[in-house]
Amino acid sequence: MLDAPVAGLWRCWTEPELLKQWFCPKPWYVSEARMDLRPGGEFFSVMNGPEGERFENIGVFLEIEPQRRLVSTDAFRPGWVPTERAFMVSHVEFEPQGERTRYLARAMHWNEETLKQHEQMGFHDGWNMAADQLETLAKSL
Amino acid sequence: MLDAPVAGLWRCWTEPELLKQWFCPKPWYVSEARMDLRPGGEFFSVMNGPEGERFENIGVFLEIEPQRRLVSTDAFRPGWVPTERAFMVSHVEFEPQGERTRYLARAMHWNEETLKQHEQMGFHDGWNMAADQLETLAKSL
Repeated sequence: MLDAPVAGLWRCWTEPELLKQWFCPKPWYVSEARMDLRPGGEFFSVMNGPEGERFENIGVFLEIEPQRRLVSTDAFRPGWVPTERAFMVSHVEFEPQGERTRYLARAMHWNEETLKQHEQMGFHDGWNMAADQLETLAKSL
Repeated sequence: MLDAPVAGLWRCWTEPELLKQWFCPKPWYVSEARMDLRPGGEFFSVMNGPEGERFENIGVFLEIEPQRRLVSTDAFRPGWVPTERAFMVSHVEFEPQGERTRYLARAMHWNEETLKQHEQMGFHDGWNMAADQLETLAKSL
């Protein structure tokens, strides 16, 4: 349960300038983001770490239902071109509960190996920290 | 170049009862087909061989632009759930040229290994034979 209305959360998830402010657990940060909100449209971001780490995330949106559902994956580049590696699907759902929102963020993987790898990368803590940052930002809009 | 109008080709690609008539090179045949024409909608078919072989193809549509473009993949089940194996993306495009149609059917793969495997399964001959069957059926509508 996030203490922010759906409309603000949706904006934070879909406007690049807002996304950059919460998408990575601090002190990591997003330096670039491009979002083309249609099936097959680009979802690109660059994550940066405090030691100068830099990771490009290339992907596309699969499904967009405004203020309700947002699905994306790194399995394709724009044009539905398969990437080197299909790592995960991000499936996010929003359900209004008065002024608050039931927020469901799932990562789905093609196999046990990448699932475990994602867990070891700190998936649970990372996504929870990002969700806290998301809540704070959405509430402030 | 197919000697049939776009409208008929599109029907053959998107109506299960028509798809079953051309989708496999004979003597193989499709015994079942389900198509839910929206991003993430089910694309299911069962291919049968003359020796009793039976292959279920589970997948979803990625993008639908009526009479212009149809993209699907076996990388997901409905609900964007990753399948056991992401094998290919099917990317089909139609461009009207008077009463004829420029037809472009591409298969894209995640790696060299599955691409080669698909070639060894007889991809080029198979898709060309299916395209001939598609042309004949579409012309007859």
